[in-house]
Amino acid sequence: MPLDHGGLEILDTEECRSLLATTPLGRIVFTDRALPAVQPVNYVLADGDVVIRTSPASRLATAAGDAVVAFEIDDFDTASRTGWSVVVIGRARAATGSAELAALRALPLRSWAPGDHDHFIRIHPQLISGRRIPDYSAPAV
Amino acid sequence: MPLDHGGLEILDTEECRSLLATTPLGRIVFTDRALPAVQPVNYVLADGDVVIRTSPASRLATAAGDAVVAFEIDDFDTASRTGWSVVVIGRARAATGSAELAALRALPLRSWAPGDHDHFIRIHPQLISGRRIPDYSAPAV
Repeated sequence: MPLDHGGLEILDTEECRSLLATTPLGRIVFTDRALPAVQPVNYVLADGDVVIRTSPASRLATAAGDAVVAFEIDDFDTASRTGWSVVVIGRARAATGSAELAALRALPLRSWAPGDHDHFIRIHPQLISGRRIPDYSAPAV
Repeated sequence: MPLDHGGLEILDTEECRSLLATTPLGRIVFTDRALPAVQPVNYVLADGDVVIRTSPASRLATAAGDAVVAFEIDDFDTASRTGWSVVVIGRARAATGSAELAALRALPLRSWAPGDHDHFIRIHPQLISGRRIPDYSAPAV
């Protein structure tokens, strides 16, 4: 596994895509009134896109509706100090059109937050990268 | 507990500061070559600042050395779909000066990534906000 300048393993695109399919929760990174913003969101994948469900009135819908955003997932173990992260960068866009909305409503995606969430944002990945902290305590194979 | 427009509980500043002291890992959000960037980092608090240890040659040191950044922590439970997040916004700056560096080196902070990490970034919180997904399945008290 190749290492980056910081000694972290570089995950290949295929592994990043696999990891994206394993977790229910990520963090969307965008800009809100010229300040960096980050918000946890649950998500599903649809045709390779990250799909998020939110309220039409949310800050997320307003600020990230048509912008280049980052989307991050990770899983770390505090005891062993190991783990991995995957970051997707792509343009977010609000889903429109009755056929697309019907398809998205049929996804197994319910917002964890209460209330009306009939607004869908999809992020089409243009860059995918991932890193893993190697477990140096594990026996070499 | 007051709710935001999305039905999430708004955590007060004191609770956010308490939560910041409970976790070892967060995510720093910055801009790298005009693109949104996000990276998991372990951290400690020092005099109320978020302190991160990185390599002097890292992308983080280069891009977030003197910029307004966001820093996010969260903890969610997939089964109950509950959890919380805290976001700090503030200016990041590289620590300089031998006295400051000596103090930071004495902190219980070792980067989880391998290699040289004798570069310290501290974020002085200017805005702190937090949200919690209420557990509607819990009995009302």
